[in-house]
Amino acid sequence: MSDFWLGSLVTDTPQAGFELAIKLSRMGVKYTQPSAEVRDRLRPQYGEDATALIASSQVVATNFQTIAAANNYWRS
Amino acid sequence: MSDFWLGSLVTDTPQAGFELAIKLSRMGVKYTQPSAEVRDRLRPQYGEDATALIASSQVVATNFQTIAAANNYWRS
Amino acid sequence: MSDFWLGSLVTDTPQAGFELAIKLSRMGVKYTQPSAEVRDRLRPQYGEDATALIASSQVVATNFQTIAAANNYWRS
Amino acid sequence: MSDFWLGSLVTDTPQAGFELAIKLSRMGVKYTQPSAEVRDRLRPQYGEDATALIASSQVVATNFQTIAAANNYWRS
Amino acid sequence: MSDFWLGSLVTDTPQAGFELAIKLSRMGVKYTQPSAEVRDRLRPQYGEDATALIASSQVVATNFQTIAAANNYWRS
Amino acid sequence: MSDFWLGSLVTDTPQAGFELAIKLSRMGVKYTQPSAEVRDRLRPQYGEDATALIASSQVVATNFQTIAAANNYWRS
Repeated sequence: MSDFWLGSLVTDTPQAGFELAIKLSRMGVKYTQPSAEVRDRLRPQYGEDATALIASSQVVATNFQTIAAANNYWRS
Repeated sequence: MSDFWLGSLVTDTPQAGFELAIKLSRMGVKYTQPSAEVRDRLRPQYGEDATALIASSQVVATNFQTIAAANNYWRS
Repeated sequence: MSDFWLGSLVTDTPQAGFELAIKLSRMGVKYTQPSAEVRDRLRPQYGEDATALIASSQVVATNFQTIAAANNYWRS
Repeated sequence: MSDFWLGSLVTDTPQAGFELAIKLSRMGVKYTQPSAEVRDRLRPQYGEDATALIASSQVVATNFQTIAAANNYWRS
Repeated sequence: MSDFWLGSLVTDTPQAGFELAIKLSRMGVKYTQPSAEVRDRLRPQYGEDATALIASSQVVATNFQTIAAANNYWRS
Repeated sequence: MSDFWLGSLVTDTPQAGFELAIKLSRMGVKYTQPSAEVRDRLRPQYGEDATALIASSQVVATNFQTIAAANNYWRS
């Protein structure tokens, strides 16, 4: 997967950082399952599965730790 | 999802930081399942499932690590 | 949930810090399932489920990381 | 649970630190399930369950992070 | 497994770091299951299992934390 | 378990550090299930279970965080 998609961990705001954490979490899935067709087929399943949604939020939380540290927690 | 919801990781107190960690954890779910109707339908299920509740607390703990670090652990 | 329950992450001893980690872990559950009646009903179930007990210990370990860092690891 | 069991996170060696991580992991279970009788009953079950053993090792790894940091990684 | 596969955690870009995190995550599996034949057989299964894909992304997120720290978050 | 098996977290190379993380992960299992006979019996099971393999890689990733930090990420 040679497409360019991640140029920097620095974001202007915490919310933009959180949204980058969402992106990293999805990319972690995409590298394991590159087929968009398969991922689209799975989405309605885990979107209605509380356990899978909580697990997704766990991945986001982990990636957000990294991004928040990279941004020095956006301390002014 | 372009609504503004996260302006800062800094809070006045540890408890406010913990409550922000709760919010981040819920937002991690919301970005994956944007439908409030679906999330409301799932809530009674995982609210009575010990495993799901513990997993939720795990997400909160991870987000609280980030927020506590951002606030220098509210050391006086 | 506006009750005051967390004033500081600083504790006198590592053990008091570990016990605060236990409290944070339970509060993570409580914010998701505020009903004491439901939580009391679930307790006997997960208390006899090795997987749930290990998962609980994982949450405590994560919260203890935060509290230990907040206390500079109680280094003398 | 008012017994004294954790006086310091500092250990002489990495191995002693790892063994303290084991202890913290077990105490995390013990605070949730204080009955030694129940814990003894569960042990043979999860001791033969690969998933539970891996999850136990995950808890130990998390606690070892804390203890290793507390000891400055035993760098000489 | 004596093959040389990891010379440095330093990468030129965040994306190369993320891709190294993918590699570490796969190597974690490979050390436990060295047989390429078995791993190839399992791939179609977990590639269609949302829970397994999310768990994979969790491993990547954890390894990316390490690599991002090693690279000082690629701050310019 | 009084055998000496962990003298230092410092390694010459990142790869040796990753292999030490593998060792710590296995020791985390061994302390919980000391019987080599039982562990050998479980191995073929989890070695063919994608979820267990991913969970193993998660433990390794967590231990590798510790070891990489201990080695200052092997920065030259």
